[in-house]
Amino acid sequence: MTITITAFERSPDGGKGLARDARVRWALEEVGQPYEVRLVSFRAMKEPAHLALHPFGQIPTYEEGDLALFETGSIVFHIAGHHVGLLPDDPDARARAITWMFAALSTVEPPILELANARLLEGDKPWSRERLPLVVDRVRDRLKQLSARLGRADWLAGGFSAGDLMMVSVLLRLKPSGILDEYANLAAYLARGEARPAYKRAFDAQLAVNTGKPPTG
Amino acid sequence: MTITITAFERSPDGGKGLARDARVRWALEEVGQPYEVRLVSFRAMKEPAHLALHPFGQIPTYEEGDLALFETGSIVFHIAGHHVGLLPDDPDARARAITWMFAALSTVEPPILELANARLLEGDKPWSRERLPLVVDRVRDRLKQLSARLGRADWLAGGFSAGDLMMVSVLLRLKPSGILDEYANLAAYLARGEARPAYKRAFDAQLAVNTGKPPTG
Repeated sequence: MTITITAFERSPDGGKGLARDARVRWALEEVGQPYEVRLVSFRAMKEPAHLALHPFGQIPTYEEGDLALFETGSIVFHIAGHHVGLLPDDPDARARAITWMFAALSTVEPPILELANARLLEGDKPWSRERLPLVVDRVRDRLKQLSARLGRADWLAGGFSAGDLMMVSVLLRLKPSGILDEYANLAAYLARGEARPAYKRAFDAQLAVNTGKPPTG
Repeated sequence: MTITITAFERSPDGGKGLARDARVRWALEEVGQPYEVRLVSFRAMKEPAHLALHPFGQIPTYEEGDLALFETGSIVFHIAGHHVGLLPDDPDARARAITWMFAALSTVEPPILELANARLLEGDKPWSRERLPLVVDRVRDRLKQLSARLGRADWLAGGFSAGDLMMVSVLLRLKPSGILDEYANLAAYLARGEARPAYKRAFDAQLAVNTGKPPTG
């Protein structure tokens, strides 16, 4: 059955990996599943046809036969559950990898989103300059704990898993800020994620939508 | 095998359902699994023994034989996957219920956490009064979309599921603010969740820790 995902017609970051379809593309590339992409404009995202697929009017969505899903966590989990390569078979190891998916989305991403909001939505407010360092410190609190847990390991729980895919995707949002460079092992962890061939294919495919050039290689 | 979870020795809300062990207690009550609770002080949460269980120094954790998990999403998913009552058997219906778990944690909870931070961590800042309405509006954006999707249904995707358990738990945090009352169907949805016998047992058990009285009934 054909897999169809949705993505921004024009991504706010110009297709540099931050729009959330990147996470789904990466998961599909890791498991070797071909997929089609339907591009959605900002206006169409808020119209009934798209809201029927995604009640919060966002991208990506995932369609496969009669199944329609939204939420990158759910989509990546679905892909990981139906194909080999993103979750270990051993039940306890699998539960631990799934734990890191939730940790990425529920514990590490919220302060990073709050920082993004502080910059994008409140950057012009009179309190912005004084408030930003407080928000950055909340991000640092999480990074410090994550760095301590990762230690010298390559990945968070044994081999690369959907947990790492999600954590790397969440951390990518911090790359331009330079905060990640304060934690050498996290910066190296991010670089390991970005170096995966499946990540590169996903990145190139997303970028090609926004530059109008077909992906190379 | 005995299931042991951790909870606050003294909960910041006095045991009124907001600490995250409530979510795990509720799930265990829904599937009829007995469990033991180990109480953890704020100091112990930041010490190596607890950090080995939970890298972000929080509660709850979940231990069952050799398996140790953290993150309420992961723990509730594990419970739902191993017992009957929280996820439908049909694979597509199951994927949709799991989608709502992720939607609760990744899309609805972050603005609610941002509002909590604005009140608890920045309530004394000079920008607090002017900024709060902006943060409340971000919460409203999500509630409006959630309300539109729920419509006149009792639950988000067919019968009650782990997705509803998580969404109700996330919305509970808004109860004191009164914002939820602007969306009659969401207020009724929350009340339906709170009326479930399993929720009441979980609530009473959490409250008993903090009042020192054993749960009644």
